[in-house]
Amino acid sequence: MGTEFTGPPPTAPALWAALREEAAAAAASEPVMRGLLELAVLRHEAPLPAFAALLAGRLAEPLMPVERLDDLVREAGTGFLAFAVADLAATRRRDPAARGWLAPFLYYKGFHALSWHRVAHRLWESGRRDLARYLQNRASVVFGVDIHPAVPVGHGVFIDHATGVVIGETAVIGNDVSILQGVTLGGTGKQQGDRHPKVRDGVLLAAGAKVLGNIVIGRGAKVGAGSVVLADVPPCATVAGVPARVVGWCRDAVPALAMDQSIPTGT
Amino acid sequence: MGTEFTGPPPTAPALWAALREEAAAAAASEPVMRGLLELAVLRHEAPLPAFAALLAGRLAEPLMPVERLDDLVREAGTGFLAFAVADLAATRRRDPAARGWLAPFLYYKGFHALSWHRVAHRLWESGRRDLARYLQNRASVVFGVDIHPAVPVGHGVFIDHATGVVIGETAVIGNDVSILQGVTLGGTGKQQGDRHPKVRDGVLLAAGAKVLGNIVIGRGAKVGAGSVVLADVPPCATVAGVPARVVGWCRDAVPALAMDQSIPTGT
Amino acid sequence: MGTEFTGPPPTAPALWAALREEAAAAAASEPVMRGLLELAVLRHEAPLPAFAALLAGRLAEPLMPVERLDDLVREAGTGFLAFAVADLAATRRRDPAARGWLAPFLYYKGFHALSWHRVAHRLWESGRRDLARYLQNRASVVFGVDIHPAVPVGHGVFIDHATGVVIGETAVIGNDVSILQGVTLGGTGKQQGDRHPKVRDGVLLAAGAKVLGNIVIGRGAKVGAGSVVLADVPPCATVAGVPARVVGWCRDAVPALAMDQSIPTGT
Amino acid sequence: MGTEFTGPPPTAPALWAALREEAAAAAASEPVMRGLLELAVLRHEAPLPAFAALLAGRLAEPLMPVERLDDLVREAGTGFLAFAVADLAATRRRDPAARGWLAPFLYYKGFHALSWHRVAHRLWESGRRDLARYLQNRASVVFGVDIHPAVPVGHGVFIDHATGVVIGETAVIGNDVSILQGVTLGGTGKQQGDRHPKVRDGVLLAAGAKVLGNIVIGRGAKVGAGSVVLADVPPCATVAGVPARVVGWCRDAVPALAMDQSIPTGT
Amino acid sequence: MGTEFTGPPPTAPALWAALREEAAAAAASEPVMRGLLELAVLRHEAPLPAFAALLAGRLAEPLMPVERLDDLVREAGTGFLAFAVADLAATRRRDPAARGWLAPFLYYKGFHALSWHRVAHRLWESGRRDLARYLQNRASVVFGVDIHPAVPVGHGVFIDHATGVVIGETAVIGNDVSILQGVTLGGTGKQQGDRHPKVRDGVLLAAGAKVLGNIVIGRGAKVGAGSVVLADVPPCATVAGVPARVVGWCRDAVPALAMDQSIPTGT
Amino acid sequence: MGTEFTGPPPTAPALWAALREEAAAAAASEPVMRGLLELAVLRHEAPLPAFAALLAGRLAEPLMPVERLDDLVREAGTGFLAFAVADLAATRRRDPAARGWLAPFLYYKGFHALSWHRVAHRLWESGRRDLARYLQNRASVVFGVDIHPAVPVGHGVFIDHATGVVIGETAVIGNDVSILQGVTLGGTGKQQGDRHPKVRDGVLLAAGAKVLGNIVIGRGAKVGAGSVVLADVPPCATVAGVPARVVGWCRDAVPALAMDQSIPTGT
Repeated sequence: MGTEFTGPPPTAPALWAALREEAAAAAASEPVMRGLLELAVLRHEAPLPAFAALLAGRLAEPLMPVERLDDLVREAGTGFLAFAVADLAATRRRDPAARGWLAPFLYYKGFHALSWHRVAHRLWESGRRDLARYLQNRASVVFGVDIHPAVPVGHGVFIDHATGVVIGETAVIGNDVSILQGVTLGGTGKQQGDRHPKVRDGVLLAAGAKVLGNIVIGRGAKVGAGSVVLADVPPCATVAGVPARVVGWCRDAVPALAMDQSIPTGT
Repeated sequence: MGTEFTGPPPTAPALWAALREEAAAAAASEPVMRGLLELAVLRHEAPLPAFAALLAGRLAEPLMPVERLDDLVREAGTGFLAFAVADLAATRRRDPAARGWLAPFLYYKGFHALSWHRVAHRLWESGRRDLARYLQNRASVVFGVDIHPAVPVGHGVFIDHATGVVIGETAVIGNDVSILQGVTLGGTGKQQGDRHPKVRDGVLLAAGAKVLGNIVIGRGAKVGAGSVVLADVPPCATVAGVPARVVGWCRDAVPALAMDQSIPTGT
Repeated sequence: MGTEFTGPPPTAPALWAALREEAAAAAASEPVMRGLLELAVLRHEAPLPAFAALLAGRLAEPLMPVERLDDLVREAGTGFLAFAVADLAATRRRDPAARGWLAPFLYYKGFHALSWHRVAHRLWESGRRDLARYLQNRASVVFGVDIHPAVPVGHGVFIDHATGVVIGETAVIGNDVSILQGVTLGGTGKQQGDRHPKVRDGVLLAAGAKVLGNIVIGRGAKVGAGSVVLADVPPCATVAGVPARVVGWCRDAVPALAMDQSIPTGT
Repeated sequence: MGTEFTGPPPTAPALWAALREEAAAAAASEPVMRGLLELAVLRHEAPLPAFAALLAGRLAEPLMPVERLDDLVREAGTGFLAFAVADLAATRRRDPAARGWLAPFLYYKGFHALSWHRVAHRLWESGRRDLARYLQNRASVVFGVDIHPAVPVGHGVFIDHATGVVIGETAVIGNDVSILQGVTLGGTGKQQGDRHPKVRDGVLLAAGAKVLGNIVIGRGAKVGAGSVVLADVPPCATVAGVPARVVGWCRDAVPALAMDQSIPTGT
Repeated sequence: MGTEFTGPPPTAPALWAALREEAAAAAASEPVMRGLLELAVLRHEAPLPAFAALLAGRLAEPLMPVERLDDLVREAGTGFLAFAVADLAATRRRDPAARGWLAPFLYYKGFHALSWHRVAHRLWESGRRDLARYLQNRASVVFGVDIHPAVPVGHGVFIDHATGVVIGETAVIGNDVSILQGVTLGGTGKQQGDRHPKVRDGVLLAAGAKVLGNIVIGRGAKVGAGSVVLADVPPCATVAGVPARVVGWCRDAVPALAMDQSIPTGT
Repeated sequence: MGTEFTGPPPTAPALWAALREEAAAAAASEPVMRGLLELAVLRHEAPLPAFAALLAGRLAEPLMPVERLDDLVREAGTGFLAFAVADLAATRRRDPAARGWLAPFLYYKGFHALSWHRVAHRLWESGRRDLARYLQNRASVVFGVDIHPAVPVGHGVFIDHATGVVIGETAVIGNDVSILQGVTLGGTGKQQGDRHPKVRDGVLLAAGAKVLGNIVIGRGAKVGAGSVVLADVPPCATVAGVPARVVGWCRDAVPALAMDQSIPTGT
């Protein structure tokens, strides 16, 4: 069921073909899942309706029927689809436990939460702020992931395990960032100005890290698990501790892609 | 929609009037949310039934129908309503992202979880402990917030983002406290005696802080993000680190109201 | 209702008899819960169908009907039942707030999540990996507990409060372990080899601890709340801090049973 | 469970007290029904909310949530309540199988369909015709009873068994009428004018009778089962056959109250 | 799929084996129905649980969960099962459109309504009259079939198409009877005594027939479609008309088995 | 809202435009129905998906999710759509109570039942008989309309009120036929051959008529309400009675279009 994935992100049609193939194989070998696989993947003829149906089913509640949510994803269109495909590729590439496309697509709540954030951000930008806020809070209840819809998020972002992630209103997330469970990008006061972190490309935020205030986490930096970061982190640095201090520097790999949560223990 | 809020908590009728006005405006501008807004706010003629319907809808499950939960909130009556209004005012005042009453009322899971805790605590006090425990655990599943129903909680408390908050059986929470996601008020052993923290008025517990044992967090203190507190914290102190040590003292502001999670980094 | 519990784990029939007795008493004293108690406990004549119905009801969703999930638990059979009884006994023995069998059985999401993991692990071992992964991710959405189905878990394990627990693919959990909310047993990179912690018998992992990499947490060790562990921990040691260092040694008690999250503050 | 009922219709409070008493007795003797009885009767403190909840629950569907339907019944207010009490009294008095108030209130679909018609007729009269038509057709799907909302219906009407009853747009139903299953009050063409029967007080329309065209069924008349009536029926007459002819005359009893479907066979 | 069926009723195990075989074949050829077939037939290992699950699913509503209804059918036990098997055999034998066991078992609402009547009658006999009445009225809403639970019904009874069938409190139905849609066995007044028809073995009641009063329909008689019967019908007679008169006599076949609704038109 | 409709059937796009216009007007004037109207009409951009969503929502049940039913209607494609538009036009033209397109489209259960029959017949013809039979029986439960999927039905057919209609396996329905509630087209025995009526173009079958056996109802004939027809009916004849005899002849109008259920009473 799947193999390691290292190449560039697939096109949407290529991803879709691969997803269908995996789903057909899984449906053949696991009768208990057949219904789920048919309705989530096999009955659809194109990826956007499949993403829309899947994501809508996650958030629907009696007062917000699945059809309306489905519409919101479809309206986000091919722009959304391109982001979702890149996120899925990032997920598969960086999660050693992901050996195919199917499980990340169907189940990973970090991927689902990020996808809904992308829809909510688009609504926020177009002035539909009540609806964007609804989606933010509904995702917080369902996935335990709370991202303010004002936050711009780059491409190829991976939120792993995801429970407890909180990202505040004036934060910015670059490309190719990886974020683990329990990470907070928080504020430093009640003023309404710019008060949350800016996370540059390729950064890895390990499990439970708290990054607070209008500070910059430089390109390719790594924030150790359980760290509390209160000041700018230089590009390529590894920081750790409470409060966090520089304990190392990146070598060849981009931390967000390597997903190595360890830090130099000699420090 | 909405503006900064700085005055004293509104009366219940004033809050209700403002909520209805915001809901009507939102329903007019966002058709997708019209159904939700009408059923949650606009169809009600008084605030208690609206709170009851909203909160009941969050926790209902097939074996615990919405009508029973609605009754429990209504029975909590005006005493409950006064607390809920003060909590909502605290939420709006301290969350810079909250620019009106509507979003906190409808969506904030910290507010919903705290409201259910207030109902559960009332049941616990009156001897209906099985039911109180049911509500505790149901809220833990739905909101990711686990507060033992024996815990007395003061007025004007704000639980921000909320995922992962755990508060043990013999803890006490004062007035005007602010608690962020991932905070634990935990115990130090299996004895059944008094074994959890006492949090005094105006305290801020920043994201991911672990406060353990029968210790006192003094009035107006601040516990830094990711800190682990194992001993009493003096009034007005700022503590941080693992284990936490005093790193500063409060100046003019009450930490819980300022919501500034940062700590002096010179230490 | 209920008393302290100190003896050895009960047999399944003895547990079942006690559960029914407690449920009958609760149904008599709390009419609001009668329906829930009858359907979850009193209508069943044996423990396995009751566990199956309870657990199936937690995870069911429109695309995965309750009947299929019920079948999966029943198929896990008496082997599963023995583990579940021991987990429930561990839960009751170590949680001072648990004064009977009923609340842990009905509500504790740590117990429910662990039970589903035991079913998923059995499926994983028998090659039904798609279904095992489905259960993992569904439990992550519902309980906020994310345990890879490949992980072997010993008997008598207690996951307290549970929100935010993450346990990676190549981790191993021994017997009589206690794990609190927000604990991560995480990896150190994207290679697919052995990359997660091995936790020996009797270990206590306190709230928010991050344990990372293919390291060993020795028998009877305690990891302090909020600690970040990056290297082997000797048997009987207490470690704390970011990164964690040895701050004490066990005395008479097994940490996982004592559930004392405190650490020596003199260090 | 109940006794014969012969007196005048009770007041709404008296009916309500009797209903509650019966429901309490049934809940005590039949545990399986306890949940239903508590939610439909015992949790309510006044009859109008109980009627509203009961009727709303019958018609609700995903696109028309129970809250809206509940509102519609409540808005119909005490005027509606007086009709409903009289219909219930008529039902109990004329149905020998009804030995109390509880079963007719909770289950009789003829009573439920007529109650919804009364709500729909009120909406129709006030110009809310789309909504009135929705209720007509929803009741037709749920109860198999199709009454055009324009039809005025007198007090004390009993629709027994109810499946297949159809009553057209320009029909008029008097007081104290009884209608059995399969009865049609139909039209005679596609013109939009007055084209349906006028049924006077005290008439009995037996099972399967078809009454067609703008004709008058006189006060106290009886229409035999399976008859097809195409012309005016004089007061007090008994008609039968296809087409129907006069086969007898009333004696002392009002046919609608006697509920005797038989006809003189000597004719 | 399936063939004509003429032999004696199968044993329950033989019926079960045949049902499973048909269901497996249908699931293989019709993927859309796979889920339904697996949950209704293939997942069960014995016929009683399968009947219970199927019938419970038909009547369940929010206030009467499926588990309770399932229990009621299971408690009816092998006595119920024997009746249900004979009814199913009667259905298949007499309905030319039924070419196997699967469709009648899964869908025929006459069979489902009669099965629930058998459960309700058993409850009525044992004094649980509130519950029996609930089931009667719930079946009337769901299937359009209204049979008073006091009515004893013989074995091998077939209710074809079923919409609109009404059978009153003091009626009696013999063995091998066939009843078509729209048939009423009604009363002749409001007295509580014996007031409904007694239908002997082998009778055919054709579509829309109204049989009224405490009269006897003799063994092997046929009542023509749309007839209104007000007096005893001799054994073997064919009656028709409004009111019904004898128009012929049975020859070799039992009318209920031949299912020939036609009547001699020479009369 | 709406006016008399007399012209030829509209094209699908024209009908769709008119439907949308009526729905928009109704949503503006009746807030309670807004959600329903948006989801059933206004959110769709073409008629086939709207019909599919509407019809799927009517029949869906837990074991047959709405997505699968939606697929079945969509697969029936433009062929189905042409029939549905013609049926809707027939409904509006012949029902004086229908003053627009919206109510018939949204609510008329005769229209919904006939539409599902058209889908089921298509499946039957292509050999998917298990699924076709499922749809037949599901429609019988939901709408009280039982049409065997083998029956070919012409265009422009109107089933008014619909409860209790039964049409057997070898019946044939021509074009422009109108059928009222309680009509049976039944068989005359258990042989599997051709045993049901053939109804020619333009026939009106009035309420409760029973037409039995392999007989022909000639072009433009009218069958009176409550009649029982056992022999061929000549073209243009009006028949009535039990058994039915010729009581008149058509004049200028086609009976099915005039919808006049009356019969000459001079006879």
